[in-house]
Amino acid sequence: MNIGVLGTGVVGQTLASALVQRGHEVKLGARSATNEKARDWAAKLGRSASHGTFADAAAFGEMVFNCTSGVSSLEALELAGARNLDGKPLVDVANPLDFSRGMPPTLSVCNTDSLAEQIQTAFPGARVVKTLNTATAQVMVNPGMVSGEHDIFIGGNDPGAKAQVTEILQSFGWRNIIDLGDITSARGMEMILPLWLRLYGTFNSPVLNFHVAR
Amino acid sequence: MNIGVLGTGVVGQTLASALVQRGHEVKLGARSATNEKARDWAAKLGRSASHGTFADAAAFGEMVFNCTSGVSSLEALELAGARNLDGKPLVDVANPLDFSRGMPPTLSVCNTDSLAEQIQTAFPGARVVKTLNTATAQVMVNPGMVSGEHDIFIGGNDPGAKAQVTEILQSFGWRNIIDLGDITSARGMEMILPLWLRLYGTFNSPVLNFHVAR
Repeated sequence: MNIGVLGTGVVGQTLASALVQRGHEVKLGARSATNEKARDWAAKLGRSASHGTFADAAAFGEMVFNCTSGVSSLEALELAGARNLDGKPLVDVANPLDFSRGMPPTLSVCNTDSLAEQIQTAFPGARVVKTLNTATAQVMVNPGMVSGEHDIFIGGNDPGAKAQVTEILQSFGWRNIIDLGDITSARGMEMILPLWLRLYGTFNSPVLNFHVAR
Repeated sequence: MNIGVLGTGVVGQTLASALVQRGHEVKLGARSATNEKARDWAAKLGRSASHGTFADAAAFGEMVFNCTSGVSSLEALELAGARNLDGKPLVDVANPLDFSRGMPPTLSVCNTDSLAEQIQTAFPGARVVKTLNTATAQVMVNPGMVSGEHDIFIGGNDPGAKAQVTEILQSFGWRNIIDLGDITSARGMEMILPLWLRLYGTFNSPVLNFHVAR
């Protein structure tokens, strides 16, 4: 599948590389068409990898991943362009973490709303799916790094989009995929971040994940 | 140990009963000294169980459990009286869930603050410990109801108070007790509620809990 990945940070590059490795054609999108990180990434990954602007990547993808910083995701998606997102699964893996007031970060939206809901509202033609935001980048694409049984959450209004994203998750090795329902479930997924960050500090490693025992 | 339990709802009664069953003397506190639920509970549990006002229960306890509704906990603790809480472990198991705007509830405090922090600030002489708020009442006192490995979180500024509360948790059967550090960790513990409530809906049962896989 042709996939656009927006954001050249660790999350974007890790996801983009894993998608290339699973046989997809991937365009990594940045604010600028000459972004060095995106250019270096594409050069390293070979002929299934390319790069361009946010709009280039979104236009290229049959599915688009939002891996931009959560506090600037809406702006990045505006640059990507609503028309380039229309009808496509838009996988939101971002967390609206605001580091501007120091550590620990707070959420720039929570409780009565979520980043994923804001994205769905701003881009009603996109089929927004929230997932993967509760795991660190390496674990997103290699859940086997974490011992034992553990889970990934998924939420969104469009069952077809969730099914397509579920196939991607399975290709990364996810076995326990918990469908929490519509896009409002993103509130819970994003609000777990303060606990996740605290656990990172407690165990001095981001290689951890949640399992829902029953 | 003499323990005061504030709140006559399911959480308060369940914890109070479990504490009696483990050999403690327990006074269940209510807004009124003639609360029927508290009176019936004490009559049922026998001579290690008694009841009274919030102030009676707090004065009685060497340790005090806050099992009142989160949105009215500060008011209930005012009635309990700062002097009756001074120097004692005050175990806050409440969640600041606001149901006034319908379902799902929102949190009345989160992100930059938490109920447990508000309690610690309002009652600086109390040794506030946040724990158990991430499990349903039955699971709090019987973690074996949930299959496999799963965890309970604890946070607070006073290591001695956390050690005393840890012994109580162990007496309930908790084996994986994760100390998240100071009382600000309550933000993460309380902000997991929206996800917890969503999982309750997804699995149609509150008998579930989180495990941190690593």
